[in-house]
Amino acid sequence: MRKPIVGIMGPGRGATHADIAVAYELGQCIAQQGWLLLTGGRNEGVMHAASQGAKDAGGLIIGILPGSDPVGISSAVDIPILTGMGNARNNINVLSSDIVMVCGMGCGTASEVALALKVQKPVILLNASDVSQAFFQQLTDSPVLVAIDPAQAMAIAHNLFNSTAQLLPSPKFSLER
Amino acid sequence: MRKPIVGIMGPGRGATHADIAVAYELGQCIAQQGWLLLTGGRNEGVMHAASQGAKDAGGLIIGILPGSDPVGISSAVDIPILTGMGNARNNINVLSSDIVMVCGMGCGTASEVALALKVQKPVILLNASDVSQAFFQQLTDSPVLVAIDPAQAMAIAHNLFNSTAQLLPSPKFSLER
Amino acid sequence: MRKPIVGIMGPGRGATHADIAVAYELGQCIAQQGWLLLTGGRNEGVMHAASQGAKDAGGLIIGILPGSDPVGISSAVDIPILTGMGNARNNINVLSSDIVMVCGMGCGTASEVALALKVQKPVILLNASDVSQAFFQQLTDSPVLVAIDPAQAMAIAHNLFNSTAQLLPSPKFSLER
Amino acid sequence: MRKPIVGIMGPGRGATHADIAVAYELGQCIAQQGWLLLTGGRNEGVMHAASQGAKDAGGLIIGILPGSDPVGISSAVDIPILTGMGNARNNINVLSSDIVMVCGMGCGTASEVALALKVQKPVILLNASDVSQAFFQQLTDSPVLVAIDPAQAMAIAHNLFNSTAQLLPSPKFSLER
Repeated sequence: MRKPIVGIMGPGRGATHADIAVAYELGQCIAQQGWLLLTGGRNEGVMHAASQGAKDAGGLIIGILPGSDPVGISSAVDIPILTGMGNARNNINVLSSDIVMVCGMGCGTASEVALALKVQKPVILLNASDVSQAFFQQLTDSPVLVAIDPAQAMAIAHNLFNSTAQLLPSPKFSLER
Repeated sequence: MRKPIVGIMGPGRGATHADIAVAYELGQCIAQQGWLLLTGGRNEGVMHAASQGAKDAGGLIIGILPGSDPVGISSAVDIPILTGMGNARNNINVLSSDIVMVCGMGCGTASEVALALKVQKPVILLNASDVSQAFFQQLTDSPVLVAIDPAQAMAIAHNLFNSTAQLLPSPKFSLER
Repeated sequence: MRKPIVGIMGPGRGATHADIAVAYELGQCIAQQGWLLLTGGRNEGVMHAASQGAKDAGGLIIGILPGSDPVGISSAVDIPILTGMGNARNNINVLSSDIVMVCGMGCGTASEVALALKVQKPVILLNASDVSQAFFQQLTDSPVLVAIDPAQAMAIAHNLFNSTAQLLPSPKFSLER
Repeated sequence: MRKPIVGIMGPGRGATHADIAVAYELGQCIAQQGWLLLTGGRNEGVMHAASQGAKDAGGLIIGILPGSDPVGISSAVDIPILTGMGNARNNINVLSSDIVMVCGMGCGTASEVALALKVQKPVILLNASDVSQAFFQQLTDSPVLVAIDPAQAMAIAHNLFNSTAQLLPSPKFSLER
């Protein structure tokens, strides 16, 4: 049985201190749970903090990079996937994650949430403004999932993994894939 | 001197009657102006309506398709570009347009607006809810451009093309490219 | 009825004088025939020569660029599609062409021929060494098409367009797409 | 220090018994060495055999899939990366591998070797016909590396990793990336 892959997405340079703190703690939780972490792989903001948190907890970190060479990769990434396709790689981040957790918001992050909702991939928002929540709720009939802290995000994720048949509309989501 | 390429983006199946009407009229305006139209190319919603509007006005229509075969292409598209990369092609839609005009909102459309703002590509929103406007304004320091109808969108576009040096922060945008 | 799109592919910097000459003449022939030309769009070698040939004959030229900004685009390209995905755009070149004509050989060109054969897209080789012809023939059960000059390449293309039902194994190829 | 990622590429359905046997043994060797294996991820041919070999030797296997859903993934893949971009993902296979080992030949495989040579990524050919070797040698000034069996391929790989400064022309290749 393959291990679940959980994506943590969020702003790079524009991340707030709160985004960084939440991302680090989420990365730790995911690693402690034995799940694999997937991020955008760069050495900045939420991507780097989540990767570092997972690394400090002994986890395995996959980074899906926009570039085609090793410049700017987070030192905490174990498996750098060099796509060479810029922001179009955001779609790979979403498709390759079983669940997407989002810390904060930025342009790239917004594109990832939208792409995830489009293919009915489960998304859990943290540190999301009321406007962000309202916006994404406009885009989907399903309830947009929001967590107030990493512990709640992990609880939601457990619930999703344990009851995919009931909760998740997409046949694309399966632990057995 | 190359002709400007204006992208019109918006929902497929989820487009409203108002989105369709605005997209058709915008397509007409762009063709009448002698500009090239770029859409997501599919035979649905805003993509198809804009393409049909441009076609009826004698324009040239480029469709950037998600698929790798000719199924589902709008009959109004003159130049189908088959990317075979699914929703990741949204990034090509944005990069290849000099200006992005948006009719309505959906998951794919939201990803395109976000990707456009990320690379400082000019975006003009039509039929956008207050929440949508507020959300995208959160993502950028520049004012989010909103038009109340196709005529105003065209006026804004003219202004952008005539004063790129003053208005546009990105070196990626240039009529001379 | 949409106009056929013919791709001309070949080396950039490594193009020989013969490759350049053939590419220019092929570009002219395609434009004179009323077909659309598709190239890799850059301002070098076969791409540029073919585009210039088509332009000088009054044709329309589509360039599928590897980059995300307007640097290095052939001045003869009318419709620059900025993919921002580097060499992965070679697959789009192939998928978007109804027929692929190849002048000379290089690394990028070889990848395009291989990707075309994989999806049973018609390929016509010009200026191909015996080794190149033998190599590609190893990859496919269908005969690899070779032309000795642009006139013969155009004759083969006409034949392909007129008898797709008999000659072409792929349902992906159709003038009616 | 990140572990090296070695890609094993080769035909899917068209793989010979010899290709399968070599791929399985190479996968084992890579895992025993403590290196990570990267393949095209599908449940066929060289991809599957190499993944199974590495799995049986306790290795970690990354699969870069062409599809956007979990259909057709090799059961031996630990980390499925779903690109949703079809054959364009071949470029990611190449960019993400520190060294590319090739078992046999097919259309997709040929595109990968060509893309690797284009960015000066080290390639080691196994089970390659004389024509294949001659063809790829035409595309590059550097000697095309050929191994007669997995043991020799591993020896060449060790040599490459130990002397990148001397042997490898590309700044893109580095164990420290």
